[in-house]
Amino acid sequence: MIQVIAVTHDSKKVTYTNLDELDITLYKWCWIDFNMPTHEEIDELHNYFHFHPLAIEDCVHRLQRPKLDYYDDFTFFVTHVINPDDFTKEEINFFVGSNFVVSFHYQNFNQINQVWNRLISTDIIKDWDQYHCFYEVLDKIVDQYFPIIYKIEDVLNEIEDNTENKSMDILLDELFDIRHQLLTLRHTVNPMRDLLYRMLNSQHLEGIKRKVPYFSDIYDHLLKLSEMVDSNREITMDIRDSYISMNSHQANQVMKILTIITSIFAPLTFIAGIYGMNFEYMPELTMKYGYFISLGLMGIIALLMFFWFKRKGWF
Amino acid sequence: MIQVIAVTHDSKKVTYTNLDELDITLYKWCWIDFNMPTHEEIDELHNYFHFHPLAIEDCVHRLQRPKLDYYDDFTFFVTHVINPDDFTKEEINFFVGSNFVVSFHYQNFNQINQVWNRLISTDIIKDWDQYHCFYEVLDKIVDQYFPIIYKIEDVLNEIEDNTENKSMDILLDELFDIRHQLLTLRHTVNPMRDLLYRMLNSQHLEGIKRKVPYFSDIYDHLLKLSEMVDSNREITMDIRDSYISMNSHQANQVMKILTIITSIFAPLTFIAGIYGMNFEYMPELTMKYGYFISLGLMGIIALLMFFWFKRKGWF
Amino acid sequence: MIQVIAVTHDSKKVTYTNLDELDITLYKWCWIDFNMPTHEEIDELHNYFHFHPLAIEDCVHRLQRPKLDYYDDFTFFVTHVINPDDFTKEEINFFVGSNFVVSFHYQNFNQINQVWNRLISTDIIKDWDQYHCFYEVLDKIVDQYFPIIYKIEDVLNEIEDNTENKSMDILLDELFDIRHQLLTLRHTVNPMRDLLYRMLNSQHLEGIKRKVPYFSDIYDHLLKLSEMVDSNREITMDIRDSYISMNSHQANQVMKILTIITSIFAPLTFIAGIYGMNFEYMPELTMKYGYFISLGLMGIIALLMFFWFKRKGWF
Amino acid sequence: MIQVIAVTHDSKKVTYTNLDELDITLYKWCWIDFNMPTHEEIDELHNYFHFHPLAIEDCVHRLQRPKLDYYDDFTFFVTHVINPDDFTKEEINFFVGSNFVVSFHYQNFNQINQVWNRLISTDIIKDWDQYHCFYEVLDKIVDQYFPIIYKIEDVLNEIEDNTENKSMDILLDELFDIRHQLLTLRHTVNPMRDLLYRMLNSQHLEGIKRKVPYFSDIYDHLLKLSEMVDSNREITMDIRDSYISMNSHQANQVMKILTIITSIFAPLTFIAGIYGMNFEYMPELTMKYGYFISLGLMGIIALLMFFWFKRKGWF
Amino acid sequence: MIQVIAVTHDSKKVTYTNLDELDITLYKWCWIDFNMPTHEEIDELHNYFHFHPLAIEDCVHRLQRPKLDYYDDFTFFVTHVINPDDFTKEEINFFVGSNFVVSFHYQNFNQINQVWNRLISTDIIKDWDQYHCFYEVLDKIVDQYFPIIYKIEDVLNEIEDNTENKSMDILLDELFDIRHQLLTLRHTVNPMRDLLYRMLNSQHLEGIKRKVPYFSDIYDHLLKLSEMVDSNREITMDIRDSYISMNSHQANQVMKILTIITSIFAPLTFIAGIYGMNFEYMPELTMKYGYFISLGLMGIIALLMFFWFKRKGWF
Ligand SMILES: [Mg+2]
Ligand SMILES: [Mg+2]
Ligand SMILES: [Mg+2]
Ligand SMILES: [Mg+2]
Ligand SMILES: [Mg+2]
Ligand SMILES: [Mg+2]
Ligand SMILES: [Mg+2]
Ligand SMILES: [Mg+2]
Ligand SMILES: [Mg+2]
Ligand SMILES: [Mg+2]
Ligand SMILES: [Mg+2]
Ligand SMILES: [Mg+2]
Ligand SMILES: [Mg+2]
Ligand SMILES: [Mg+2]
Ligand SMILES: [Mg+2]
Ligand SMILES: [Mg+2]
Ligand SMILES: [Mg+2]
Ligand SMILES: [Mg+2]
Ligand SMILES: [Mg+2]
Ligand SMILES: [Mg+2]
Ligand SMILES: [Mg+2]
Ligand SMILES: [Mg+2]
Ligand SMILES: [Mg+2]
Ligand SMILES: [Mg+2]
Ligand SMILES: [Mg+2]
Ligand SMILES: [Mg+2]
Ligand SMILES: [Mg+2]
Ligand SMILES: [Mg+2]
Ligand SMILES: [Mg+2]
Ligand SMILES: [Mg+2]
Ligand SMILES: [Mg+2]
Repeated sequence: MIQVIAVTHDSKKVTYTNLDELDITLYKWCWIDFNMPTHEEIDELHNYFHFHPLAIEDCVHRLQRPKLDYYDDFTFFVTHVINPDDFTKEEINFFVGSNFVVSFHYQNFNQINQVWNRLISTDIIKDWDQYHCFYEVLDKIVDQYFPIIYKIEDVLNEIEDNTENKSMDILLDELFDIRHQLLTLRHTVNPMRDLLYRMLNSQHLEGIKRKVPYFSDIYDHLLKLSEMVDSNREITMDIRDSYISMNSHQANQVMKILTIITSIFAPLTFIAGIYGMNFEYMPELTMKYGYFISLGLMGIIALLMFFWFKRKGWF
Repeated sequence: MIQVIAVTHDSKKVTYTNLDELDITLYKWCWIDFNMPTHEEIDELHNYFHFHPLAIEDCVHRLQRPKLDYYDDFTFFVTHVINPDDFTKEEINFFVGSNFVVSFHYQNFNQINQVWNRLISTDIIKDWDQYHCFYEVLDKIVDQYFPIIYKIEDVLNEIEDNTENKSMDILLDELFDIRHQLLTLRHTVNPMRDLLYRMLNSQHLEGIKRKVPYFSDIYDHLLKLSEMVDSNREITMDIRDSYISMNSHQANQVMKILTIITSIFAPLTFIAGIYGMNFEYMPELTMKYGYFISLGLMGIIALLMFFWFKRKGWF
Repeated sequence: MIQVIAVTHDSKKVTYTNLDELDITLYKWCWIDFNMPTHEEIDELHNYFHFHPLAIEDCVHRLQRPKLDYYDDFTFFVTHVINPDDFTKEEINFFVGSNFVVSFHYQNFNQINQVWNRLISTDIIKDWDQYHCFYEVLDKIVDQYFPIIYKIEDVLNEIEDNTENKSMDILLDELFDIRHQLLTLRHTVNPMRDLLYRMLNSQHLEGIKRKVPYFSDIYDHLLKLSEMVDSNREITMDIRDSYISMNSHQANQVMKILTIITSIFAPLTFIAGIYGMNFEYMPELTMKYGYFISLGLMGIIALLMFFWFKRKGWF
Repeated sequence: MIQVIAVTHDSKKVTYTNLDELDITLYKWCWIDFNMPTHEEIDELHNYFHFHPLAIEDCVHRLQRPKLDYYDDFTFFVTHVINPDDFTKEEINFFVGSNFVVSFHYQNFNQINQVWNRLISTDIIKDWDQYHCFYEVLDKIVDQYFPIIYKIEDVLNEIEDNTENKSMDILLDELFDIRHQLLTLRHTVNPMRDLLYRMLNSQHLEGIKRKVPYFSDIYDHLLKLSEMVDSNREITMDIRDSYISMNSHQANQVMKILTIITSIFAPLTFIAGIYGMNFEYMPELTMKYGYFISLGLMGIIALLMFFWFKRKGWF
Repeated sequence: MIQVIAVTHDSKKVTYTNLDELDITLYKWCWIDFNMPTHEEIDELHNYFHFHPLAIEDCVHRLQRPKLDYYDDFTFFVTHVINPDDFTKEEINFFVGSNFVVSFHYQNFNQINQVWNRLISTDIIKDWDQYHCFYEVLDKIVDQYFPIIYKIEDVLNEIEDNTENKSMDILLDELFDIRHQLLTLRHTVNPMRDLLYRMLNSQHLEGIKRKVPYFSDIYDHLLKLSEMVDSNREITMDIRDSYISMNSHQANQVMKILTIITSIFAPLTFIAGIYGMNFEYMPELTMKYGYFISLGLMGIIALLMFFWFKRKGWF
């Protein structure tokens, strides 16, 4: 579906639903939105706009990092929307020219619709131009990264506290899934941050220079997001190390108990074994207090063992 | 609450408690402090000062990193005060213009009050201007980071020495809490350091250039703090690694004891078991010295085991 | 084998199969391909083209990183093709001059053949020049890195899920082989990326400047590849850490079972041993309910042990 | 104690022991040394020299990193001397102006005294100026870092070889102390290195530019020291990892012995236990060769176990 | 021993074996080689050449990193030769001036001798100058780093495959020795690489600018070497991690066997112990099938244990 808002030089809005009757040279600026376009509509990128084939290729194919490319008569931007449920990424592409912005996306995004509707319904159109439309959509895209990382932080806190008493296996699995998600997030947030940095420091983008506080506000958000991602990755590593340390300490404790029990009972059981032997001539067996002496001996050995481990500081 | 100190061109101080009667153009410079402002007072950022809406948004909302933003007729600064008890961060925001500084904060901070009172009570006002007020508050904010990190170093030393003989679980938990606190601290100290660096090297801030030794003194402190934070994080890692190494070495020792005890007593108990069997025809049982020969055999086996482990260097 | 396509100033194509009759100064541009050259053919690099001996040395010998070298009348490029089966690297070298490109390689590569055939069979030759030939081959070389890393990602996913239930030894071995392959890949992808970066930002390469969108498209691919390699190396580390954590947790569980079993049965077996002794005077043995009392005692001890471990949270 | 060497324009030396009669404007250059100054002497920094209060504050207080600060009429340097015994750091501060150098320190340092005495006793004073005095002291300060790191390397070699056969606990404790010391050293060496780098590349320090080979010789030493510190920290990590690997391998060996012993004797002891039971009707007990058959059975089981572990490659 | 080759302006070679009769100003360029010089010969650095005392100090003393220093009338270079047997480093120093190169070394190096002999025996002297001599020696020095790292890679492959079936202790020891050697190598290769980078990008070295392809060929080798060193250090880390993972996995397996054996036989031995007790009144003992019932009970317990561990997936 192709939708157009064209703004006349006296700030009136005209809308089109196809490109056949649109002559963008007549307008102050236009926003052309390719929303889930058909193959025929995609061809308009070439037939109507005559964009460079490499830009069209990047736009139409999915494997891209957020980036910008300068061409002679337009600038091409790739941005990423993250799906909070499965951490997949979807592109919104923009072609920004001297009096137009083209947005292109294979899904219907609320980030686009909200700005579109506000532009349709609002009166104050004077401050807006094609760069402001681009800014508004970008601002919404970046704002929607925050709930994703907040959710990750919640899960991390839950893993740290483990209020639901999950087993270690499940916790470790969750922890490594979080690390994976943070890695995915970083591969969107960092290129987006670099993209904004290049936009703010570019010599070629006159339209963005007039809006520096606006784009710089988005850059702030991305700097903050990038720090949050890195910091949360460090926290996952800390939790993992904490688990490993705790585990190795606990293993030590378990093994000490095992060793104490074994060390106390092995000699006792051996002594009992000796006097359970059936030799015909065993003088102790016929001694009157033989039984009690042997019990006493066992008691002494048990106490010696006990105090030896006590002095070693094992308990 | 809004409070104002306005300084006339002949260095006299006038104070106001609201903005209705204040005309800042009449004064050499003013300091307007928004201390825990009401909603009506917050609106004055727009109504009275006409600050840019994005600067007001950053000022009013809490999620910010320390930063500076240049606007046409003022510069906007976000700084962080850290609460030493729970490591939460609170913002103090500054708008610095050609003849004014506006400070804005949701809590009552002694860092602000001390400078305010000194300015009120002191006579030597000639050297002061809006930038010097800003410097004095910033200096106090940064000075109060030091006790926080000193406390962390004390806890680290305590963990290392463990004079109170806490259990390993508690020590490891404390250690990872310290790492968390250092991470939090770093996310304040490093952006603050970068903020000061940008202030010192900016082309736009004429007022700061006249005060370079002062702001550069704060920058020194932040460099030192940043190094202390990183160095303490390395020390936490060393302590953790030291724990893990010790633990794995200790586990080895425990397991050697267990193996020695088991290896000595298992064959002895087995031999005792053999002569405890009730077969009718067991020739050894009726031998005169059978019992003593079996005891001797056990002794020899025990000694062989003992010297085998001795030669292995296990004890 | 040497093959030549020479393009005349009125865009006609002439082909040669040796250099004897070729006079490159007569043509707009030529592409000379050294495909598995003989020793005599290799000598033409010096005899016919008079390339610098150091460039010829780098071309003929195999131990090179991807790179470019500027010489007075040509630029020398080394690029790497990766064999997806055994991760060996093979070089394709290029000498690009004012009206020629020489490609040189010891294997027959489809990356070269496809471009060659397309150039032979196609009519639209106007946009092509020696740099465009170079671009087309480079694009194909880089495109063929992707299936290699996709295969690695598949193996990693397979290792993570372990649907075939392989033993840990095999999984760990596969994991470290993957790390090795990623290291090999990084040593091609990163220098290739830096090579493209230098090409795009060079002051010396006028021919590449006219084709910036094309070479910059390849640079995008290499940036993406470099990120994928690093990200996959991080994932291998995560999997390894996850294995170690799981293992140390599992070892703990195993040791707890061992300790519980030992701790319950060691005292019971000891008591049974005591009443298996053959002392003549053992009062308990003649008590009527001695046997049942001893069984009861054993039951109580077993229960105490059981509940002690239960309270410790061991199961 | 304040000591002064003043050099006249015809290269004669005059010494003072207080500042009352000194007029530095009359001399070509002077060196004023504040050696363990009293409070009254410290006040001369302000009263006599009129240094900036922030420079005086940095000079008098101890918490500083090595650094330099430019002021209008002097440059202020903080340098660190390390005490080789307890790794504490002590500052020597320098104020270098157009015709003077002031050195300031709370301890009596041989680094200062040696240069002072050489300057007093030598005749060749023509090449010397305030910057050369500063260079000579700095050279001595940096030269004395080397024995400290040599000592650390000796201890590391001793830990690696362990000729004195110390216990693992002591070795690990020493290792982590070394890491701590290297961290401390790095926090002196790296800022000192950066200080020298800034001195060599500064636009403001005309006097140092005339002595570039001299200060650059010190910079070489600091580069080397910085590499030695980092390299030794890597070696400590390697030793620690080597310990952990060895330990975990040894633990494995211990556990195999334990398992072999247990696995061989557990079934044997069980069989002996069976024929030690007192059931009235146990047919094997009355068989003529029952005893020898049971011994044979035990031998077979022991051999099977033995070869099973042998085939597993456990010994 | 001092040896001189002096080249006249009409490209004739004259040789000297001391400096007494040499007047370098008469020649186009000379190469003076200090091969294992005596103290008197070392003094010529000062007496004959009047080099700066700091350059002479760096030349004569051994503790240097590869580096270059610019002086007014010469440039001073320190380069490192590595002894492949014991990984010790030996310096070759060069002083390169407007018409001379001085080489200085305490050992007799084939890198020097080969170039010297080639220069003596060859006729084509036109292209040579003092910088070309320097290049030829440097090229040989760097070429001889390669066999060292190839040997390291062979040892690493041997450690990975362990065809000689060495014990883990020996392998780990070899592995950490390799890491140590790679660290040593890096401390030569990286400064050498930086040295070449500075030479190629220097504004001061006119003679090197005329030979850029030559020195840049050496720089390529050093880049490659630096990558090989880093990559091999990563591989050592991977091997170490692989050992640790395998070990911890194996420990788990060993412990499972131990636990299974213990868990099966502990209750069986206990039951046998019970019926080995000598209580007068034990009803089971007089039951006709008491013995077989007890054997059956033991069999059932053993099977239950077996299937429990089976269901746990322990074997
Ligand atoms: Mg796309
Ligand atoms: Mg936003
Ligand atoms: Mg916003
Ligand atoms: Mg948290
Ligand atoms: Mg998972
Ligand atoms: Mg904002
Ligand atoms: Mg705010
Ligand atoms: Mg301060
Ligand atoms: Mg202060
Ligand atoms: Mg400490
Ligand atoms: Mg905690
Ligand atoms: Mg200060
Ligand atoms: Mg080659
Ligand atoms: Mg491609
Ligand atoms: Mg393509
Ligand atoms: Mg995956
Ligand atoms: Mg392998
Ligand atoms: Mg593309
Ligand atoms: Mg000080
Ligand atoms: Mg020195
Ligand atoms: Mg010296
Ligand atoms: Mg060593
Ligand atoms: Mg210690
Ligand atoms: Mg030196
Ligand atoms: Mg690690
Ligand atoms: Mg030397
Ligand atoms: Mg070479
Ligand atoms: Mg060569
Ligand atoms: Mg290998
Ligand atoms: Mg060794
Ligand atoms: Mg080469």
